Amino acid sequence: MTAPVGEEIVLARAYLIRVAEPPAFALHAFVDVVGPVEAADLVRRGDVPDAVRSETEARRDLDLASDDLRNAEKVGARLVVPEDPDWPAWQLLCLAPSTGRGPRGTGRPLGLWTRGSVPVANLFDRAVSVVGARSATGYGEHVAAELGFELVQAGMTVVSGAAYGIDGAAHRGALSAGGPTVAVLGCGIDLAYPAGHSGLIEGIAAAGLVVSEYPPGTTPARHRFLVRNRLIAALSSATVVVEAGVRSGARNTAATAASLGKVVMAVPGPITSVMSVGCHDLLRTGGAVVAGSIPEIVEAVGPVGANLDPSRKDLRRSTDGLGEEALRVHDALRREESMDAEQVAVEAGLPLDRVRTLLPELEITGHVTRLDDGWRQQEGGDRHG
Amino acid sequence: MTAPVGEEIVLARAYLIRVAEPPAFALHAFVDVVGPVEAADLVRRGDVPDAVRSETEARRDLDLASDDLRNAEKVGARLVVPEDPDWPAWQLLCLAPSTGRGPRGTGRPLGLWTRGSVPVANLFDRAVSVVGARSATGYGEHVAAELGFELVQAGMTVVSGAAYGIDGAAHRGALSAGGPTVAVLGCGIDLAYPAGHSGLIEGIAAAGLVVSEYPPGTTPARHRFLVRNRLIAALSSATVVVEAGVRSGARNTAATAASLGKVVMAVPGPITSVMSVGCHDLLRTGGAVVAGSIPEIVEAVGPVGANLDPSRKDLRRSTDGLGEEALRVHDALRREESMDAEQVAVEAGLPLDRVRTLLPELEITGHVTRLDDGWRQQEGGDRHG
Repeated sequence: MTAPVGEEIVLARAYLIRVAEPPAFALHAFVDVVGPVEAADLVRRGDVPDAVRSETEARRDLDLASDDLRNAEKVGARLVVPEDPDWPAWQLLCLAPSTGRGPRGTGRPLGLWTRGSVPVANLFDRAVSVVGARSATGYGEHVAAELGFELVQAGMTVVSGAAYGIDGAAHRGALSAGGPTVAVLGCGIDLAYPAGHSGLIEGIAAAGLVVSEYPPGTTPARHRFLVRNRLIAALSSATVVVEAGVRSGARNTAATAASLGKVVMAVPGPITSVMSVGCHDLLRTGGAVVAGSIPEIVEAVGPVGANLDPSRKDLRRSTDGLGEEALRVHDALRREESMDAEQVAVEAGLPLDRVRTLLPELEITGHVTRLDDGWRQQEGGDRHG
Repeated sequence: MTAPVGEEIVLARAYLIRVAEPPAFALHAFVDVVGPVEAADLVRRGDVPDAVRSETEARRDLDLASDDLRNAEKVGARLVVPEDPDWPAWQLLCLAPSTGRGPRGTGRPLGLWTRGSVPVANLFDRAVSVVGARSATGYGEHVAAELGFELVQAGMTVVSGAAYGIDGAAHRGALSAGGPTVAVLGCGIDLAYPAGHSGLIEGIAAAGLVVSEYPPGTTPARHRFLVRNRLIAALSSATVVVEAGVRSGARNTAATAASLGKVVMAVPGPITSVMSVGCHDLLRTGGAVVAGSIPEIVEAVGPVGANLDPSRKDLRRSTDGLGEEALRVHDALRREESMDAEQVAVEAGLPLDRVRTLLPELEITGHVTRLDDGWRQQEGGDRHG
């Protein structure tokens, strides 16, 4: 796969993406101004503004661009750059360097190492991230897998982080529906982390896409997972947290997604489960809306009106439309035994003339039946709602 | 137990409470104006305004006051009236006849038939209602029972409706902590409904209180349960819905409690359980706040600061206070292998002089250790949050 971009640009960005630890705000702004080729040249020579120097000084002599591109190619990966038509420009727009500069920042990536079978373009047009605890429960993994499956069935892409627990279950659910699913890694594109998921990550590359902004060989580290989370949030239009402990990284993804203006949903669970504490905290603080069922999630994250939850219809009881007095008349009657209007009036505590008006009305609506010996209830389900 | 109120008043109210099906707004207003004794006399003669006539016409010849009082006494019950010092006046104030006149109304009761071992006064000063589905799951019953127990342990009264499922579990939990618990019935005070809970209702009467505004012998009916729900809501300062199906009566109680300005909480549950759908609906629509744990509920419904949840402390990781750069330096280090400042600078992607400043700072805070051959990570828990 050759990128339809000049080799010079790709080499320059491959160099820059290794020189500064993402997110590198000053370097990004510098590249925006002078372009990637000149930026690479100036960084190499140390001829840059102080802020850029601070981000690039430690590694600027590490010119491994050709090596990185070669190592990436060995595992079937390539570097997608902003100059590439395949770049998910629209989705990454929310990561403008000038917005959300919290302690960990939400800056845009200088490029994305990708490995997969599907074109990057359009893959993120209808993408939903499904994230959560690594030490998930059976309940959480069940929900994540079902959700992954149903989202793909509804035409969406499932984005997650390839971790154990919720991430893995979501990817597997998506793969079982034929994909597409995207794993965003917090280490080099050529590494499988966690090692136990190397088979899963291969499967994701075969039916979807594996993405990382870290050059080949970059080892996983906690701060990289936090930085990586902003890409998961940015590349999806909604983030669903399935299970999260008090300290789960999924809450970081949720917070980032919310700060980027994305829909954030949290799946409730038993309050007896520590793995649902983070979800309930998100719901309590308004950091997420309730994801009460899988059809409800699919409806909420999909295009308006495209996936209306069919399970929420026909929930009305036959007596739902009745007013207070009509309901009292209806409930005063029996199904097995007839009553006359006087008995109904006493039982219902209503004036006789009112009962005499209501009974024929209820007959018309099919709620009561008139027999030779009086009136009976026709139907109405459970009497003690 | 003789009520410290004139017999004439008790007889008048016993007559009035049977003559009109609660809530009887017009009759209540009429009693407020002319007093119960004269009101009873005028109702009996039919010499009343039209609105009152409409409420009382069908049953005004049913003068069973003495019978009702005798039948109540047979089961150890009495009629508590607003003139009684034992009347929970303050709690029932929210049910003013002029407020919340929806289709089912929230009118005040004309009297309350009570059966129990504890004085009514003060029983509702710190009362919480625990309500939910009859066809509850094991999870729901577990939570309701634990909650009933913990509320009583925290000095509160548990109010519920004596139904199967959540109600029963909440009452049992409260009884297992020694009570007090209150059952508000939707049928006559002398009836045990459901029949399978007659033993439980006896237990509640023995250690707490059974309450009904319906005269002895009144059969259970759906509209009575809905009318009864307003008393459950009014007599508690907070309502907790533990499990509720889409059509659960508990949602009616929750809506009434909210309209009365009470705290309403809903316990989340698995989204795979139909018995949590109603709770999640309440959370989604803002009809309730998240009841994420039993200590959290006890804290929320109790007096301010009295029951602070102790489980929410000490959740911080040792690296929580570190800034972005310090965290990168910390994460770049290993525990088993020493690194020099130059290696750290490359790994962390930070200028060398910055790393040289940060390392001694991290040594002071106990995050890193200086050895003869370089620097090591001191502690820090899981590296991949």
